[in-house]
Amino acid sequence: MTPDNPSTTFTALANPTRRAILARLSSGETSVTELAKPFHLSLPAISKHLKVPQRAGLIAQGRQAQWRPCRLEPGPLKDVADWLEHYRRFYEESFDRLDEYLGAIQKAEQQHDHDE
Amino acid sequence: MTPDNPSTTFTALANPTRRAILARLSSGETSVTELAKPFHLSLPAISKHLKVPQRAGLIAQGRQAQWRPCRLEPGPLKDVADWLEHYRRFYEESFDRLDEYLGAIQKAEQQHDHDE
Repeated sequence: MTPDNPSTTFTALANPTRRAILARLSSGETSVTELAKPFHLSLPAISKHLKVPQRAGLIAQGRQAQWRPCRLEPGPLKDVADWLEHYRRFYEESFDRLDEYLGAIQKAEQQHDHDE
Repeated sequence: MTPDNPSTTFTALANPTRRAILARLSSGETSVTELAKPFHLSLPAISKHLKVPQRAGLIAQGRQAQWRPCRLEPGPLKDVADWLEHYRRFYEESFDRLDEYLGAIQKAEQQHDHDE
């Protein structure tokens, strides 16, 4: 664990290729070679990308001799979810208000159609 | 909106001072001068920090002539929550398993105490 693990996690997530790698690993563990294919990246390039989420503890690699599959480690994502929890009331409130507003518009339009 | 808004948001969150600024704004809007105080930062330093979450749309600033308060904008945090949703089954499953495991240990210990 680094002293500022949340920053390491957010840095790891701040890149579309790294988020795509996590999405790929969410369907199951896979080798680095397989991971590299859809991204049209060389092995050194994908390894460089992998280092950031590995350092954040988001990706771990098996230790079998022949095949060292990468797998998603959910701990840091749970930390992000816990961090977000504090802000939930903000985005849920504001989207609830948007829902209410859209509901009111729809109702007004239906009333208008009915009156015509 | 930038083409890769999630990366901009994650970059804005990847710094402890910027997360502390968001936490401060979660208790209400405030001026840049007030924001700077607990961080012992100069106004130019805090303004530089603010630029990153402002670019990500996490912080907006009022347009009153005398007082331009900063406020938290929850939209990008909602986007992060939506992104995380895909991974929820991973961290909830693994923590459910940990709960089960700890529950089993506790039960075994109670049984052990009872048997003694």
